[in-house]
Amino acid sequence: MRAIVPYGAVDPKTRLNSVLDDDERAAFARVMLRTVLTTLREGGHEPTVLSTAPLDETTLPAAASVVVDDRPLTAAVNDQLAAETPTLIVMADLPLATPDAIRRLIATSDDTDIAIAPGLGGGTNALVVREPAFRVDYHGASYLDHRAAAADLDATVSVVDSRRLATDIDEPSDLVEILIHGDGPARAWLVDAGFELDTGDGRVGVRRR
Amino acid sequence: MRAIVPYGAVDPKTRLNSVLDDDERAAFARVMLRTVLTTLREGGHEPTVLSTAPLDETTLPAAASVVVDDRPLTAAVNDQLAAETPTLIVMADLPLATPDAIRRLIATSDDTDIAIAPGLGGGTNALVVREPAFRVDYHGASYLDHRAAAADLDATVSVVDSRRLATDIDEPSDLVEILIHGDGPARAWLVDAGFELDTGDGRVGVRRR
Repeated sequence: MRAIVPYGAVDPKTRLNSVLDDDERAAFARVMLRTVLTTLREGGHEPTVLSTAPLDETTLPAAASVVVDDRPLTAAVNDQLAAETPTLIVMADLPLATPDAIRRLIATSDDTDIAIAPGLGGGTNALVVREPAFRVDYHGASYLDHRAAAADLDATVSVVDSRRLATDIDEPSDLVEILIHGDGPARAWLVDAGFELDTGDGRVGVRRR
Repeated sequence: MRAIVPYGAVDPKTRLNSVLDDDERAAFARVMLRTVLTTLREGGHEPTVLSTAPLDETTLPAAASVVVDDRPLTAAVNDQLAAETPTLIVMADLPLATPDAIRRLIATSDDTDIAIAPGLGGGTNALVVREPAFRVDYHGASYLDHRAAAADLDATVSVVDSRRLATDIDEPSDLVEILIHGDGPARAWLVDAGFELDTGDGRVGVRRR
């Protein structure tokens, strides 16, 4: 199944600006993208990056290609869905994703038209779309919107129960999950940048040396 | 396998005090407890509540029993582990847990001494302990501490990838997950109490009417 990884190449990960400067955010977003591409490659996919700006393909893992579409995420993804289904869509900020989690998502999708890996807070982190008429809308509580859109088409929906696919990295508190559960380049990048766990009372946080 | 559900019966869920008064917090904690017990029951377990104070068993689902131990969580659970293994330990604030997620945790544990369902932020939301010498420590980043404790015993560890078991309910933002993904009494209680999704930009929040 073809795999699309949307990537906002311009000023990425703005909600991390309290802990990373502009260049660092760009570098970290790129590390997360590469991690997701490598995961998909290990899972047997040949991923296409759907990027808002040109990327140097030589900096990406082998067998990843780039399509540039500078429109907002929703419009760009919907053009891809109009062109071909089934399609797997995986967000670029899921450094905890594993080939096994992707396999579970695809297995979940086998008997349904749409399979969703929800993000925390109502988002949609990964999707398998087998119904050609289905269109995404990533604004707001997209998980609920995608369920409603599927229902409007009488399309069946399945949901995968994966913490790893649910963990998209947007805010400083999300970095905790990478430091605790990550074992790849995104974790190594954070450690190099001086991030460490802050284990006080309650939930664990991060601090930067 | 026997199942233990630790329950802090005195002033529960203090981090929800900005959105729920004392009586409401007690009622909501009890609804979540009952939900977890029902889930375990549906999965074929006969759960025991390990409570810090006496509970009226007639308010609990059938086949749930209560053991009172007013010591801190870690000491109370460790006495249970010293008495008998294998033991399944499931936190009482996991209203999104399903029988299937519990089954996956137990299946994960089949070939290892310890199986962990991590919580977000470094916690340990559920555990299967087959190694009699293993002891818990729920303070701080307990997921990492439990891995280290297992390593000290040369005990093998497996980790289940479950968003549902990762979602413990401590803070107002956690209520979003119940409103979006819940379908049981905890969600009904929140809706009755006037909670609804607040879908602005970024991650979805909750507000109370």
